[in-house]
Amino acid sequence: MPLFEKVEYRPVPVRDLLLEMKNLSELMIDLAYSAALFNDRELAEEVLELEKQVDNLAYLLHIMNMIAARDARDAESLVGVSIVASAADKISDAAADIAAIVTRNIGVHSLVSEIFERVEKRLIRAKVPEKSIIVGKTIGELNLPPRMGIDILAILRGKNWIINPKEDEKIHAGDILIARGAPEGLKEFKEICEGIRGKMED
Amino acid sequence: MPLFEKVEYRPVPVRDLLLEMKNLSELMIDLAYSAALFNDRELAEEVLELEKQVDNLAYLLHIMNMIAARDARDAESLVGVSIVASAADKISDAAADIAAIVTRNIGVHSLVSEIFERVEKRLIRAKVPEKSIIVGKTIGELNLPPRMGIDILAILRGKNWIINPKEDEKIHAGDILIARGAPEGLKEFKEICEGIRGKMED
Repeated sequence: MPLFEKVEYRPVPVRDLLLEMKNLSELMIDLAYSAALFNDRELAEEVLELEKQVDNLAYLLHIMNMIAARDARDAESLVGVSIVASAADKISDAAADIAAIVTRNIGVHSLVSEIFERVEKRLIRAKVPEKSIIVGKTIGELNLPPRMGIDILAILRGKNWIINPKEDEKIHAGDILIARGAPEGLKEFKEICEGIRGKMED
Repeated sequence: MPLFEKVEYRPVPVRDLLLEMKNLSELMIDLAYSAALFNDRELAEEVLELEKQVDNLAYLLHIMNMIAARDARDAESLVGVSIVASAADKISDAAADIAAIVTRNIGVHSLVSEIFERVEKRLIRAKVPEKSIIVGKTIGELNLPPRMGIDILAILRGKNWIINPKEDEKIHAGDILIARGAPEGLKEFKEICEGIRGKMED
């Protein structure tokens, strides 16, 4: 396992490790569905990369937990933390399995894409042309969660994926966005992204 | 494993099995977080029951897949379906692991509840008093997804959980609801549920 060759021990608060693992693993499920739904090899490879990252975080977390536990009582109270970390790890493995269907060219059976499509009315992929009014705006400025009940999960810029983009990330012309959330909000946002709608309602 | 004693073979379309597995496993993650966050033993036990249900669905699905595959080409094209089913199974296992922290009295470490709380601004639990304006309304009538960007995941009525309630399910006085979605919508909905707000805005 390359895991044990690469990961260097560094002290990181367990809280931060656990939060990152939880967020990444959930994001990965959505990204894996997107990869299968849009038959997107690059995105699927990105999911496999994230899976390694979650493995590394799990490794660090278990080490930090062992260091933190000075006696049996400490250890007992920390067992729950290890269980949640392992659960996040399992979820990220499941996402990687789905992504591997795409990277290994197993082929996304029509049954699978039908089911992802049916359930994933909550997921869109939109390309941002130059004329779109969101070009140059930051994710924070768009203020999407309260406005439309949606989140931007990932941005494909050139050949690179920006996963879980931060508030101060600016939208560029040519970006491909993957967003998740309320179906009505997604529909509106797709039209805005693609320059069909010229104005964001408040 | 009781799985192999209980499950009887019955022909069910693979599509239905896979859709149910995917829906249940995702719902279970949210329910497991809720169970840990609210330290709710009954809900945690419900998650463990659902896990058995997903196991049974997986068992049926693998059988149906084998029956459907008449030759190597069929089998190759169905492998992707099995992988997605196994991924849903893994996700449901992860949810059951988290729920077991509650049922086995391992204790939800403050680190864990802090992280679930931080991320789960998207999850509320609200009790419906008699005076609430939603008493007697069906879930379909509430029309929550487009209106507030939220979903009702589960209803606790007396001692029974109704998981993933249908559109025609009526809200009763005394129900405890678990809802998920956009933070602003949840805040508004909680006030409506609890009778603090007397009117639903359109």
